[in-house]
Amino acid sequence: MKRVMLTVAYDGTNYHGWQLQDGQVTIESELNSALSRITGEDIKVSGASRTDAGVHAKGNLCVFDSEARMPGEKFSYALNTCLNEDIRVVDSVEVADDFHPRFTKTEKTYCYRIYNSKFANPLYRLYSHHSYIPLNIDLMNKGAEFLIGEHDFKSFSSVHASVKTTVRQITGAEIKRSGELIEINIKGYGFLYNMVRIISGSLMEVGSGKYPPERIGEILAARDRAAAGPTAPAKGLTLENIRIL
Amino acid sequence: MKRVMLTVAYDGTNYHGWQLQDGQVTIESELNSALSRITGEDIKVSGASRTDAGVHAKGNLCVFDSEARMPGEKFSYALNTCLNEDIRVVDSVEVADDFHPRFTKTEKTYCYRIYNSKFANPLYRLYSHHSYIPLNIDLMNKGAEFLIGEHDFKSFSSVHASVKTTVRQITGAEIKRSGELIEINIKGYGFLYNMVRIISGSLMEVGSGKYPPERIGEILAARDRAAAGPTAPAKGLTLENIRIL
Repeated sequence: MKRVMLTVAYDGTNYHGWQLQDGQVTIESELNSALSRITGEDIKVSGASRTDAGVHAKGNLCVFDSEARMPGEKFSYALNTCLNEDIRVVDSVEVADDFHPRFTKTEKTYCYRIYNSKFANPLYRLYSHHSYIPLNIDLMNKGAEFLIGEHDFKSFSSVHASVKTTVRQITGAEIKRSGELIEINIKGYGFLYNMVRIISGSLMEVGSGKYPPERIGEILAARDRAAAGPTAPAKGLTLENIRIL
Repeated sequence: MKRVMLTVAYDGTNYHGWQLQDGQVTIESELNSALSRITGEDIKVSGASRTDAGVHAKGNLCVFDSEARMPGEKFSYALNTCLNEDIRVVDSVEVADDFHPRFTKTEKTYCYRIYNSKFANPLYRLYSHHSYIPLNIDLMNKGAEFLIGEHDFKSFSSVHASVKTTVRQITGAEIKRSGELIEINIKGYGFLYNMVRIISGSLMEVGSGKYPPERIGEILAARDRAAAGPTAPAKGLTLENIRIL
């Protein structure tokens, strides 16, 4: 028996998110059926991050166990011949039998993309949120500074989330603009449900001038979802990578 | 009667190119039917550049004549409510009655995108060509220098093209890399049929080491399509903009 870890990139547009759901096509269901076809075993992958419907990834991680003789690094090639083009296994590697990326310290990097122009751009429509309201990224960066470090992010989490603690540590939060495309890059050791999308929705309110940058600090202090801005749409979000520490 | 010029961006994936073709859905057919719906007139746009099936644009241009009272700048808003999301009219403006962007001196900028990695990236799959062969952009830039200036580009044009002269002037040719994404940026006053895709296919042969950079100069001198590299796939090409001089 061996344990293999996959690095998976996907366009979330046509999937009901990562997680298995009855009767829905998800990234997990696609990987399970491709692996079962290749190995003849009944394989279920276990993922590091359950991305929502419509969210994209350049490097999500998952592991599975197999009796197959195929070396770990060959799984990526074999899987990519079975999977749709909107899912690619960009790396596969054998790991220790008890290794799991969800129960290991990792740093996750997310990018929330905004196309900031009068009209949407067809070439970015699947991978960014369109905002026709001009956004000032200097103000957004000032607001983002309040997020760095260890804080209670309860205000930036969806109300139905049930977790032991809402304290998380953000290691980077930076906003860049290249022409009409704005990228909100956020990294940290762990994230609450919808956290990056609520942070992005709140930073957009800062960028438009609706909130002063200091409001981000006040939202944190409020520990109340109602204090924060709206949850930004799923299609703007990409899980860029998960770094194992 | 007024003449209106549209700046049109589109994802070419789902269209049979720009030009009207019986029974095919094209960018031109979509614009014509949207304009006819809005104005009640039988309107046919006339474009600056007939992009091929699968080629994308951020700023193609076209003009049309209308008796409608709507001011020129309002057409973009009206059209975007009728068009599919993969076509956006990003600008509309009234021009002189005899103005036509195809019969005016313009500088066109194209970008050919290559995703250069072992496996394709789902998020770039529609807008780039995947090459798993490592490409050296320093060599590609050396090869591209031979293209700058006025030359007979007969070798870089599809054999069935019938034009008076195959002499064209290239004003810029530069290759950049950002991570796995390579961009071949080419601008000039006019292009032959498939010219940018044959140049890109030839520069990829330089990048892989199959051709030395000097071969680009030899291909030009040969004035023979057979001397050049393959025509790179359509989906990697984007008409970035057309600048009216």
